Formats: sequence, structure tokens, C-alpha cells
Amino acid sequence: MTYCVALRLDRGLVFAADTRTNAGLDNIATFRKMHIFEKKGDRVIAMCAAGNLAVTQSVISLLRERAHDETLGQPTIMTASTMFQVARVVGQAVRDVREIDGDALAANSENFGVSFLLGGQIGTEAPRLFQIYSAGNFIEATEDTPYFQIGEHKYGKPILDRVTRADMSLGDAAKLVLISFDSTLRSNLSVGMPIDLLLYNRDTLEVSRQTRIEQDDEYFRQLSSGWSDALRDAFSHLPPFDV
Amino acid sequence: MTYCVALRLDRGLVFAADTRTNAGLDNIATFRKMHIFEKKGDRVIAMCAAGNLAVTQSVISLLRERAHDETLGQPTIMTASTMFQVARVVGQAVRDVREIDGDALAANSENFGVSFLLGGQIGTEAPRLFQIYSAGNFIEATEDTPYFQIGEHKYGKPILDRVTRADMSLGDAAKLVLISFDSTLRSNLSVGMPIDLLLYNRDTLEVSRQTRIEQDDEYFRQLSSGWSDALRDAFSHLPPFDV
Repeated sequence: MTYCVALRLDRGLVFAADTRTNAGLDNIATFRKMHIFEKKGDRVIAMCAAGNLAVTQSVISLLRERAHDETLGQPTIMTASTMFQVARVVGQAVRDVREIDGDALAANSENFGVSFLLGGQIGTEAPRLFQIYSAGNFIEATEDTPYFQIGEHKYGKPILDRVTRADMSLGDAAKLVLISFDSTLRSNLSVGMPIDLLLYNRDTLEVSRQTRIEQDDEYFRQLSSGWSDALRDAFSHLPPFDV
Repeated sequence: MTYCVALRLDRGLVFAADTRTNAGLDNIATFRKMHIFEKKGDRVIAMCAAGNLAVTQSVISLLRERAHDETLGQPTIMTASTMFQVARVVGQAVRDVREIDGDALAANSENFGVSFLLGGQIGTEAPRLFQIYSAGNFIEATEDTPYFQIGEHKYGKPILDRVTRADMSLGDAAKLVLISFDSTLRSNLSVGMPIDLLLYNRDTLEVSRQTRIEQDDEYFRQLSSGWSDALRDAFSHLPPFDV
């Protein structure tokens, strides 16, 4: 399993992804699921991947191989002029991988299922955020729904629903996604640390902050225990049920 | 979908169940999913049901028809002398319904899947709580895991994990399950109010409190908005992420 979340805020974008992969409970490993395509002053694009690791890695590899290939005669992730075009490039890469591997996976009764969070900013266009499906089609975050989750999304959703505001700071958003991760990590063993975190400040056209939150990270530990204490405290202060 | 939760505490048992059923998004209805078998001074037994409504209703009907049938020559839900025996009686009823309807459901590619929370107290035995599966087998709650959920369990689990304590009062437990329901109701449209709630005080051998929380319930509204406010407040007081 996987848990990734991305927010599109007034002040920029925030992405977080776990790093655990598993083929059965007895075969777990650590793989980066967050991928960054950056050309300072021109574009910052981040992708988070969930689903079949062989497929998601192939999609990323195709995107990287083609990134600067001028012989293609079509936009690539590094040359497309809008984020909508980039989403189409990524969707096409998903379809290309299905063309290559889909039949063999189906013959083996294996699942092609993948999904991606794709966000970024190109030039003077506003930052945009997309969720891309296995079929290569996609949806875009709007003011009504400024965040997307992929993978194990349920445990960490209630806090996102209640706290997310388009005008929050990137630091608050980072704190929020880490709390959302904490709830998910406690409940699903197939989501695991470290957590990759990326902050992008609007109109800077370069990655603002990229960090990996390790298992023993002191801030995450504070957040995790502080949040549990705060929940218990909040609970105790709510009006009693009249027995 | 459905959401039901039950807690086995030092002081007794608490059960809660939603009442929404749906056959497609465009066909929703209200059905009671909590069923009570009580003989004051002898036993209190409560069951909450999730899954195929035709199957769960048949199971309950079988249990009620047989409850006082002395010609069966075997324990029934009203005559069994321990809760373990009751769990076996319920499991057998599930198997009997599969015997009656299973083939026809399979021929129609329909899902037999059901699950039940079953808890109660008989005589001087301590209160016990079970979760019963589609196959008629079951597990029992222990000190390590004093609660069970069936149906849409994920959204409401983080708060249960953090707050549940075996020594909490039944009133606190009722407040807790209602908060757990609030998170679930916000995220899954196929879980719906009203909520049936039952409190059982250990060794009383009669239902302590049975109530239905309606859509416009003032206490639930206070809890829901109070909890949202408290979460936002708790969030704002946690240490900031260092951007």
C-alpha cells in the first residue's frame, strides 16, 4: 500500500509520500515514491505514485528518458508549456506502459492499477494539481477540493477535511499532512516511514524545501505524541453524554 | 455500507449502529441494524449487522423464530448458558441462511457477505463481545483490543485507537463512539443517521439505555461542531513545522 497527499494552496503546493512497498506482508522494502522534475526559473513539477511499483517506475523512467528528446516532435514533461499539457504527457506515459506490459500482467492475473498525484508550476501559469488514473485520464484540484490523496486515504482524511484552508501557510500545511500521516501509519502497516516531503512556494519556480522525515525524527515524534494528547484532552472537554 | 462499533469495557458494553442501507446511490433507505434480545435478570444480548440486508434480516428472523423453540433440542439465543454458546448459535444461523440462499445468490453473482457484532451478558458470566464472519466463525474482544468495528471502519478508527480505555465510563464511551460516527458520516454518504445507541451496565442484566440519535439531535450537533473546533484548536497549538 501507499499513502500520498498533495495540497494546492494560495501560497503554493505541498506534497508528501510514504516509502513503503510490499509484496505480501513478509516482503517489504523502501522505495521513493516522490519524483521531482525541476528547471529553476522555468518549472517545478512533483509526482507521487501509488500502485504497482513496476508500472509506476516504468512511467517515471519513460518520462525521464523522453524529457529532453527533441526528436519526439511533441511536448515532454520538461518542455510542455502548461501543467495541463504535462498531465496529458504523464497520462500518455501510463498508456504507453500499459501497451508494453498490460497484456503480460493480465495473463498473469496481476493488477496494472496505478495512480499519481501531479502538481507544479510552469512559468507564469498558476500552480496546478492533478490526480492521474490508471487509464491515463485525470482530474484537477479546484478551490472546492484543494487536496488529493492516493493509496490508503481513509484514516488520514478526517483531519484534512477539517483543517485544510486554501489560505494556510506552507508550514501549517506540512504540519497538517504529517498529522494525517501519523493517523495512517498507526492503522496500516503497509504504509511506512520515512516520509518524503516537498514544499513549493508559488512563483519561485524552484523547490523551496525538500526533506525526508525519518523514523526517529524528533519533530514528527513531538507531533505524534502532542496530537494524541491533544485529542484526548479535546475529548475530555466535550460535553458529557447524558447516561 | 454500514458503520457499527461495539466496546467491551470494565463497566459494561456500548453498541452503536447507523441505519442507512443502499442498493446503488439512488436507492437508499433506513433500516434498523441493531437487534436486542433481553430477558431481564437473565440476559441482555445485542447484535449489530453489516452486509447483505436480506441475509442479515434472515439471520435475525431465524434467531427470533428459534429463540423459544424447545423442540430443537439445542441451545438458542434465549436459552444458551454462555455468550460463547450464543456466538455459536448465531454462527450456525449464518450457515443456515447460506444453505438456504447461498446458491441462488451465487447464481446471480451477488455477495453473501455479512458480519455481526454480538455482545452481552448471561447470568454471572462476565460481559463478552464477539465479531462474527460470513463463514459463521468468530473472534472475541480481549483486553488488548476491547472494541470491534464492522462496515466502514477506517474513518472512525483513529479516535477509537487513541481514546478507548477499558476503565472509561459508559457515558464517555457513548461520547467516543458518536465522535467516531461523526468522522465516518462526514466521509461516507452510505453511512447515515439516525444512529442507534445501546448502553449496558455490567451485572444489571437489563438494558441500561437505548436511544436513537436523530439527524437534528442537539447533543450530536454540539459534539460534531465542538469536535471540529477542538481539532482545529489542537492543530494550531502543535509546534510549527520549520519551513
